[in-house]
Amino acid sequence: MKALLFDVFGTVVDWRGGVAREVATFCARHGITDVDPAAFADAWRARYQPAMEEVRAGRRPFVRLDVLHRENLDATLAAFDIEARRLDSVDLDELNRAWHRLDPWPDAVPGLKRLRQDHIIAPLSNGNVALLLNMAKRAGLPWDAILGAEVVAAYKPDPASYLRTVDLLGLAPEEVCMVAAHNDDLHAARACGLKTAFLPRPTEHGPGQCTDLAADSNWTWIAADLEDLADQLDAA
Amino acid sequence: MKALLFDVFGTVVDWRGGVAREVATFCARHGITDVDPAAFADAWRARYQPAMEEVRAGRRPFVRLDVLHRENLDATLAAFDIEARRLDSVDLDELNRAWHRLDPWPDAVPGLKRLRQDHIIAPLSNGNVALLLNMAKRAGLPWDAILGAEVVAAYKPDPASYLRTVDLLGLAPEEVCMVAAHNDDLHAARACGLKTAFLPRPTEHGPGQCTDLAADSNWTWIAADLEDLADQLDAA
Repeated sequence: MKALLFDVFGTVVDWRGGVAREVATFCARHGITDVDPAAFADAWRARYQPAMEEVRAGRRPFVRLDVLHRENLDATLAAFDIEARRLDSVDLDELNRAWHRLDPWPDAVPGLKRLRQDHIIAPLSNGNVALLLNMAKRAGLPWDAILGAEVVAAYKPDPASYLRTVDLLGLAPEEVCMVAAHNDDLHAARACGLKTAFLPRPTEHGPGQCTDLAADSNWTWIAADLEDLADQLDAA
Repeated sequence: MKALLFDVFGTVVDWRGGVAREVATFCARHGITDVDPAAFADAWRARYQPAMEEVRAGRRPFVRLDVLHRENLDATLAAFDIEARRLDSVDLDELNRAWHRLDPWPDAVPGLKRLRQDHIIAPLSNGNVALLLNMAKRAGLPWDAILGAEVVAAYKPDPASYLRTVDLLGLAPEEVCMVAAHNDDLHAARACGLKTAFLPRPTEHGPGQCTDLAADSNWTWIAADLEDLADQLDAA
């Protein structure tokens, strides 16, 4: 196994906590007092899969995630009865880049540093290049390359997203392992011939999370977190 | 200025020395005694621009540089009266990956480490992703991302190669600086609105080099090497 590809939102970084933090700051600055920041983050994120599905289904040409996030932000503001037109569009673009400023889970940076010693490590995320690059620079994520949906013009779990990324690496699918906290991502990667590694992120969706609490298949590796995955690969 | 993009072959790594080293090893292993490795490297490289021109001119769809290098290797072997058909294609593929195993100039790794502290740094090379990634992993080049011709499906100096890369970074052209030891690369980058930095590599083509020995225009920065460029940006 030569390369490890990582899901990012949820697996490497805490999107819900980071977006809620930025929404809280934004609301405070604009005198918006009746919004639960975590509920806003959940509502914004709920529009993520439907927006990408327009692209995956071929009803819309590929556009980067920053664009989908911005459209979804407008829709979420409307759903919370916040009049986006009264807000400065520069401020809204800045809020949209909350997704560039997410914090890693505590094991992510030390785990990735260890995994990088013997493997190529790169994100295979639906996030766009600038988003993933700005996030990595801020958080110290030691990626060897910034890969993902924008580079291959296909959103996960479209098989093209995995296969084109493997091809860019000049590797065979079985030389590459997809690492994710989401079983559906791993099912799609395995169907393309990749190895798979699962780790749970039981508070990704907040305290009441009831999905992806455990592996639902016999993935190549099942780890507690990224440091445990490094331990297992060291011992293998 | 937020990002620095680097030409790689010649500017960051010594392609001639590295390819000649690998050609010498290959010839020794196959009992080929009448080939000057540096002359072979020059001949192989001489086919580089004409091969890319087929793509730039639209006569051929984009193909990655590994493919062009492999075709050019066959042609170079023929020009040296070496029968490629008698050689194992696995061995030839391995020789083709000599371009993945080039050594950096002595100032490159320390210079890039310093430049990375305050800027996004990435290659904008005609090399493909796997080539640049394997090179970086072997040589310790601390790129924040692996960008270049393959990611944007355009070979330098096609304006699309610069403009699409700037767009991927989510930046404006004037926020990005192209760094190269080749004046023509910088002329093309400046025409797209990028800032420019020149540094000479007077032995890139060997002891008799007569091109690109000095800046031929008033580039934004003119430096002795990458450490000097870091000094100048620190002082700016």
